[in-house]
Amino acid sequence: MRELCARPNRLISLGEFAEQFGCAKSSLSEDIAILRGVTSRYGRGIVETVNGSAGGVRFLPFYSDEADRAFIGRICTVLRVPERKLPGGFLYIADLLSKPEIMSRMGEIFAKQFYKLSVDVVVTVESMGVPIALMTAQALGVPLITARRNHTAAEGSSVTINYASSSNRMQTMSLSRRLMEKGQRALIIDDFMKGGGTAKGLEELMAEFGVFVSGAGVIFSTSNPEKKRVERYLPLMVLNNSEGCDTGTADIYPASWL
Amino acid sequence: MRELCARPNRLISLGEFAEQFGCAKSSLSEDIAILRGVTSRYGRGIVETVNGSAGGVRFLPFYSDEADRAFIGRICTVLRVPERKLPGGFLYIADLLSKPEIMSRMGEIFAKQFYKLSVDVVVTVESMGVPIALMTAQALGVPLITARRNHTAAEGSSVTINYASSSNRMQTMSLSRRLMEKGQRALIIDDFMKGGGTAKGLEELMAEFGVFVSGAGVIFSTSNPEKKRVERYLPLMVLNNSEGCDTGTADIYPASWL
Repeated sequence: MRELCARPNRLISLGEFAEQFGCAKSSLSEDIAILRGVTSRYGRGIVETVNGSAGGVRFLPFYSDEADRAFIGRICTVLRVPERKLPGGFLYIADLLSKPEIMSRMGEIFAKQFYKLSVDVVVTVESMGVPIALMTAQALGVPLITARRNHTAAEGSSVTINYASSSNRMQTMSLSRRLMEKGQRALIIDDFMKGGGTAKGLEELMAEFGVFVSGAGVIFSTSNPEKKRVERYLPLMVLNNSEGCDTGTADIYPASWL
Repeated sequence: MRELCARPNRLISLGEFAEQFGCAKSSLSEDIAILRGVTSRYGRGIVETVNGSAGGVRFLPFYSDEADRAFIGRICTVLRVPERKLPGGFLYIADLLSKPEIMSRMGEIFAKQFYKLSVDVVVTVESMGVPIALMTAQALGVPLITARRNHTAAEGSSVTINYASSSNRMQTMSLSRRLMEKGQRALIIDDFMKGGGTAKGLEELMAEFGVFVSGAGVIFSTSNPEKKRVERYLPLMVLNNSEGCDTGTADIYPASWL
């Protein structure tokens, strides 16, 4: 189980297991059947067996829909504390994004929504979104590709694009040529979406590589502007940022799809 | 086991487990004894039980010293491929840092070295070091604090310092006041150390908060300069960057303490 947890959504062959643990494949099958029963009974995920010579076993870590909703609901409650309101209508969230167990749990919620799309990579742009994107990539068993604000020499040759952020400021992001392959499927993951400018920029960057964007997930989206620059995106929470909410508690709630 | 894996190095009370799984504490104790046997027999970590009313069970994920050494050895072999050499003596490593399972495994190696120091937080500076720092924080069961190159409004009031990087360029990093508490113990984790300027900067930033730095871990350190600006640091790999190694394969090997 430890091995399966460490590599979620990755097919591990029984031969590999048998070698690692020095036991017969037949006794492994029994152990796997037991694991499958336990994880599904307690709503902790699915242990899936794929038959055939290219087969093996994989673990998809997910909780029940009710548990996910309750988890996001608890986070919203924490965020409604008045002390979290900062000047300019900003909300203090840095401590939440710093907790590996919260990022990991949110990553599993995204993975549950997106694992059927068979994405090859998760993409994000540095740097606040890296923790949630990394944990989503881990839950999906794929690499995380991070576009950089400033090109660094250690990345080799790269593609750089300009894009307009929500505040209509021009920004730059670049990505090493070696990191992506044409025809791959990417999932965009970020911490925050206001106008969707960054996600749109990532879509354009992916187009430069001939990479198809399967969808996007963000921890927070704002209710205003209602229309974002990208179409398909799933937020975990929605922050009502309409006029005159500079004081008091944050008007934040779990996204309606949850 | 799934629950223990998801929250390593975190004490979880038997009561909490019993509630979650709807079973008696006595039957849990038996399950935990079985888990302890299995994980230690296969060198997959330690399941530790703490007695008393504040007690519970926790999982420390670590592999054997031999397995760790072999793992880092394999990474070095991958990095010695000539195509990884970039102009200016740089080494292409972005793809490695993008693999959650590699970051997670390295994070566990750091956690194994540092968990006895009872650190309260892992600190790093954006942005290449965030993945390894997050995975180390997860393995240690503590939050990750990321110093920012540019202060953002969403972090509230913060402390900003200037420091000299290896190339003696002045750089800036800032950290939200709310993220740290006086008297905490921090572990610095980063991807790369040349002169140690960034680690030294993080030490100075921690001093501003009255936070004690227990140690530092980096994925790579360079053999030159031999003397770094910080004293206690553990690299996983050492890159020989002496003169005239601009072509050919990278001279990289596992650190001697491994």
